Amino acid sequence: MNAQTKLRKKTEKGLHICVGLDTDINKIPVHLRESKNSLLEFNKAIINATANEAVSYKINFAFYESLGIPGMQTLEETISCIPSDVLIIADAKRGDIGNTSKMYAQSVFDYFKCDSVTLHPYMGYESVEPFLEYEDKISFILGLTSNSSAKDFEKQKLESGEFLYQKVISKTSEWNTRNNCGLVFGATNLEELQNNISSFEDMPILLPGVGAQGGSLEDVVATFESNSKSNFLINVSRALIYCDGSENFEQIVKKTITDYNITIKSLLA
Amino acid sequence: MNAQTKLRKKTEKGLHICVGLDTDINKIPVHLRESKNSLLEFNKAIINATANEAVSYKINFAFYESLGIPGMQTLEETISCIPSDVLIIADAKRGDIGNTSKMYAQSVFDYFKCDSVTLHPYMGYESVEPFLEYEDKISFILGLTSNSSAKDFEKQKLESGEFLYQKVISKTSEWNTRNNCGLVFGATNLEELQNNISSFEDMPILLPGVGAQGGSLEDVVATFESNSKSNFLINVSRALIYCDGSENFEQIVKKTITDYNITIKSLLA
Repeated sequence: MNAQTKLRKKTEKGLHICVGLDTDINKIPVHLRESKNSLLEFNKAIINATANEAVSYKINFAFYESLGIPGMQTLEETISCIPSDVLIIADAKRGDIGNTSKMYAQSVFDYFKCDSVTLHPYMGYESVEPFLEYEDKISFILGLTSNSSAKDFEKQKLESGEFLYQKVISKTSEWNTRNNCGLVFGATNLEELQNNISSFEDMPILLPGVGAQGGSLEDVVATFESNSKSNFLINVSRALIYCDGSENFEQIVKKTITDYNITIKSLLA
Repeated sequence: MNAQTKLRKKTEKGLHICVGLDTDINKIPVHLRESKNSLLEFNKAIINATANEAVSYKINFAFYESLGIPGMQTLEETISCIPSDVLIIADAKRGDIGNTSKMYAQSVFDYFKCDSVTLHPYMGYESVEPFLEYEDKISFILGLTSNSSAKDFEKQKLESGEFLYQKVISKTSEWNTRNNCGLVFGATNLEELQNNISSFEDMPILLPGVGAQGGSLEDVVATFESNSKSNFLINVSRALIYCDGSENFEQIVKKTITDYNITIKSLLA
């Protein structure tokens, strides 16, 4: 099943929570920390608790890379535990000149078998295009991110009158000839979301920033709903996967994502 | 020895060639392709041929990541073969929100023991700062890159009249309070190099784009020399490491980098 179909089948069910696997040994429940491969055990439990309720999993590569090769092994094993009908996003934020981006694309798509990736737009089309050659995958380009220093560059106004992130959105739309581009748009930027949502066209929107970073789930869903758009993924990482540190964490996580979904469904028509 | 000292000791000797280890099984000499770990054997030979002539090694992470975990093992082993007095640049082009960038910094600096890294500026200060906390390392921020689609965003003019890449240069200069920022500036942009070199201050400049991408070694060196600046690293990857496919490639590579250095010295006062 290609990435576009995986995503559509979930959003058609009203599922919009992307589970961010930002797995950190210092934050997982204490009772798991002593086991041989604590991170994998934790990820398996989270996947088990959320697989029927999630639109996708977003694997934050940094958390695994920080542990070096053993961490990348955990990443590989984690991916193999995710059911094949759920979209896997490699949150790797790559981007380089053409021949190098091609290598990064091989890594996330061919080797790690992810369905999707996040990309830096700074170096332009050439840096994104090798990923777009994978027609059955989705490449989420960073538009406006959730962090406060988005103001440094992303929110700089261009001579043309538009902000840099708006230029990225319009360029991404141009690049979407194969219907495999998406955008990252931080949920902390509600006003900008409201003002720019019409420019997203049919591209899927990945929204980080809900939970620990302060973005509001309700406001984001209401914004998409009022614009009759359903192609969105709200990432929740820390606020969901570490919502409980007890031996019953799996049940609490399951209840938490179910509650998110109840809230979302109540806001959708 | 910290990164700044490693770099200074080499540039004081008039060494400015950064050897780009963009190692690709399809491009290494045929006789090596059959050996058990061809890429590592090739890298060892290149390092052996160039260690006394290079200012640094730039390891293009994508080429190793494309092979997955075995590739990352080759990357780790390659790093262990580089003499401790030569700067190692992790050309990884990372950048994310703060808590995630911290993890990437741990990966390249703590785990892989690199001296330096390349970073995307798009997400602003917060995405760079966790790398800058490593005072003894050098973080090269992408300013103006060597690829033609740098025009898409990097060369967009801001309302203030400056180009985006110039804004990145001035912000990087602000962030350089610990003297551990550098800039990436593509050698294919000679006119922009000439027009902006005074804004680099004392920051080290990493220049990709010489060789296969068309930048001129002579023009770059002459530009730095005429501005009395010596803190620059000219990356050469494909044009150097694949300059010969014979069983004598090691000697030919050694002669090639030596010739580059003779050319450079002839241009320096």
